[in-house]
Amino acid sequence: MSKRNAFYAQSGGVTATINTTACGVIETARKHQHRIGKVYAGRDGIIGALTEDLIDTSKEPAAAIRALRHTPGGAFGSCRYKLKGLDEHRAQYERLIEVFRAHDIGYFFYNGGNDSADTSYKVSQIAERLGYPLVCVGVPKTVDNDLAVTDCCPGFGSVAKYVATSIREASYDVASMARTSTRVFILEVMGRHAGWITAACGLAAEKEGDAPHVMLFPEIKFDEERFLARVDDTVRRRGYCTVGVSEGLRNAEGKFLSESGLRDAFGHAQLGGVAPLLASLVKDRLKQKYHWAVADYLQRSARHIASKTDVLQSYAVGKAAVELAIKGRSGVMPVIVRKSSKPYRWTVGVAELKDIANQEKMMPRDYITGDGFHITEKCRQYLEPLVQGEDYPPYRNGLPAYVKLRNAAVPKKLGTTFKI
Amino acid sequence: MSKRNAFYAQSGGVTATINTTACGVIETARKHQHRIGKVYAGRDGIIGALTEDLIDTSKEPAAAIRALRHTPGGAFGSCRYKLKGLDEHRAQYERLIEVFRAHDIGYFFYNGGNDSADTSYKVSQIAERLGYPLVCVGVPKTVDNDLAVTDCCPGFGSVAKYVATSIREASYDVASMARTSTRVFILEVMGRHAGWITAACGLAAEKEGDAPHVMLFPEIKFDEERFLARVDDTVRRRGYCTVGVSEGLRNAEGKFLSESGLRDAFGHAQLGGVAPLLASLVKDRLKQKYHWAVADYLQRSARHIASKTDVLQSYAVGKAAVELAIKGRSGVMPVIVRKSSKPYRWTVGVAELKDIANQEKMMPRDYITGDGFHITEKCRQYLEPLVQGEDYPPYRNGLPAYVKLRNAAVPKKLGTTFKI
Repeated sequence: MSKRNAFYAQSGGVTATINTTACGVIETARKHQHRIGKVYAGRDGIIGALTEDLIDTSKEPAAAIRALRHTPGGAFGSCRYKLKGLDEHRAQYERLIEVFRAHDIGYFFYNGGNDSADTSYKVSQIAERLGYPLVCVGVPKTVDNDLAVTDCCPGFGSVAKYVATSIREASYDVASMARTSTRVFILEVMGRHAGWITAACGLAAEKEGDAPHVMLFPEIKFDEERFLARVDDTVRRRGYCTVGVSEGLRNAEGKFLSESGLRDAFGHAQLGGVAPLLASLVKDRLKQKYHWAVADYLQRSARHIASKTDVLQSYAVGKAAVELAIKGRSGVMPVIVRKSSKPYRWTVGVAELKDIANQEKMMPRDYITGDGFHITEKCRQYLEPLVQGEDYPPYRNGLPAYVKLRNAAVPKKLGTTFKI
Repeated sequence: MSKRNAFYAQSGGVTATINTTACGVIETARKHQHRIGKVYAGRDGIIGALTEDLIDTSKEPAAAIRALRHTPGGAFGSCRYKLKGLDEHRAQYERLIEVFRAHDIGYFFYNGGNDSADTSYKVSQIAERLGYPLVCVGVPKTVDNDLAVTDCCPGFGSVAKYVATSIREASYDVASMARTSTRVFILEVMGRHAGWITAACGLAAEKEGDAPHVMLFPEIKFDEERFLARVDDTVRRRGYCTVGVSEGLRNAEGKFLSESGLRDAFGHAQLGGVAPLLASLVKDRLKQKYHWAVADYLQRSARHIASKTDVLQSYAVGKAAVELAIKGRSGVMPVIVRKSSKPYRWTVGVAELKDIANQEKMMPRDYITGDGFHITEKCRQYLEPLVQGEDYPPYRNGLPAYVKLRNAAVPKKLGTTFKI
């Protein structure tokens, strides 16, 4: 087979380790220069392909690519831009192929979640229909841990380690203050539909009575009275109560609590922030002093406390994607396969993109205790291996030294433009 | 001099390294057993002394005391309980001496901020008046970095490292998403009166254009139009804008923005959260997509990313406090003295408690740029040494392994009780 170029793009919300995967892709491609010419990255994700705004990663020195391994965010830019149905929006897909053809791109690596798996699958179909030889490989990434088939998602283990560590640390703080001050602490975490990140908070509670005492999952409808009763009881028994709550918590009508009508002084609806809402409840109904935190982007960018397991897996899927592509495997995605939990052993397997596209893996009900407020032992056994090990970034001037790439543009070859 | 017991208490909001200081106190006292008998800690701070609820630290094995060095929160409990004036509330002070006398306490170590320095000073005065021999030594601690005399405050360097790291990481995230999604990110940090923690966010911006682009200090009155103009300009020039804001931001009338009228759906005032308020402004006025985070207790308990400089200084003041006490120095506090900034050299000096009590060290105006939105080079030179070095805790099951002490009670000797 002849030597052709590769296209790599980051898609959707970024993670602390999506660049680790990019590092795996680029370093592995550089080792196979007889098959893969240059790796072009899409500036701001797939938009870069549509607008022929490509980044020439071959201009980056090896040390810069190596530094991607420990740099959070998306080094080439990402985007929230979903390619629609193949038939209604055929022009988008044809444009992709036009750009790929102009730059002799024979390999398409799309690093993202459910939507991206869907897009990769559609691109592989259109390429085949148009008779354009293109190997399409999806590369998994999402803090939400909701991709089908794979045992876990690259990016999730590091968020899990961050939230479990943070809620443990804050709980040590609250425990010391509870006599005269804060008795209830609420940490809001990500995961709009699936409670995986909320569940990870539960890892901090190793023994009966350990914090966090209460978790509120998006899978369990919020019941105000039961919640308040549980917090009240915990404060009475333990002196304080720590709560981990999903941003996606819903009320009995299925409506997000965070959208349930918080208004500022001017009457504007204030979006986001289920933690302050719950804190107000605790104050008004239980008369307890509270504190709340919203970790937001801090949790998914916290490379300084990445899970080593996650870093290794994030790199491994990037490497495997390139190796699959070289073997001509198209329409697939490397996935994490768990061989055993204790001791934890994993390997990289291969899944069909069509089995992953547009699926959403929710928490199994038996990962949540019967009362809906905590995780079960089964859940702990699943989660615990994913946060194992530390993988610290280098520091400079006391702060993590993250890389910013040059991101040199590939000269355009097409005279045409494409409107996003 | 005869051998007498020591009393140690933690006061006010805890930090990631107040236990490091406790470790310094207890380990040093254990090395001077010819002079110091047992170290009794107040359960929940000074309340433990008033209620004769003392913890016998001699029951803790050396390994547990050693583990305090890397454990956040207050291991013996802290409290927000300020002893009032000496004349109006003489009974409180007399009660302290009564308890100290009953347990042969000859050394009083009070680990806290401005209020605690004041209390230590008053206790030393009353002991002298009552003819009770007591060596009173204040031990500095506060994330707010607002103690007088000392160059910096134990506990601050670690918060500074946390907020600078966090805002850098989140900024890498926002930068990748800005093309189609979030363009403005706002991180709310602590420091109700002094902007030291907000200033520390600025350490993440090393070069022109680096994030964070805007900081809002409690020292600078909030000007909505100027703020929006700056954010708008930054988004135009850089593609995105990252903001660090103090929880203590005030409007032109001197009122906290966080108390300026946010109400929930039921009309209850919602306290706290200047970040969501600013985010609403950005959304309504600039029509930009935003994200916001409130770090709250996460920042002051983040022992996992403590500054090594801070850890060393926190231990050093504990050690020095005991050494001063043994020399009979009463009414003093060990402080950090900066010998030079580049290279950073520091030593422990001694200050009079009366020079520290009830003072509040604000940010000098020349630490903030003329436009009020960033830190100056002078500020950077002051702050940078304080975040140097990492001091990771040990991990177990993928999470930091923090110690919980037994906290065995000292048998009561007094028949009397004292109502708090």
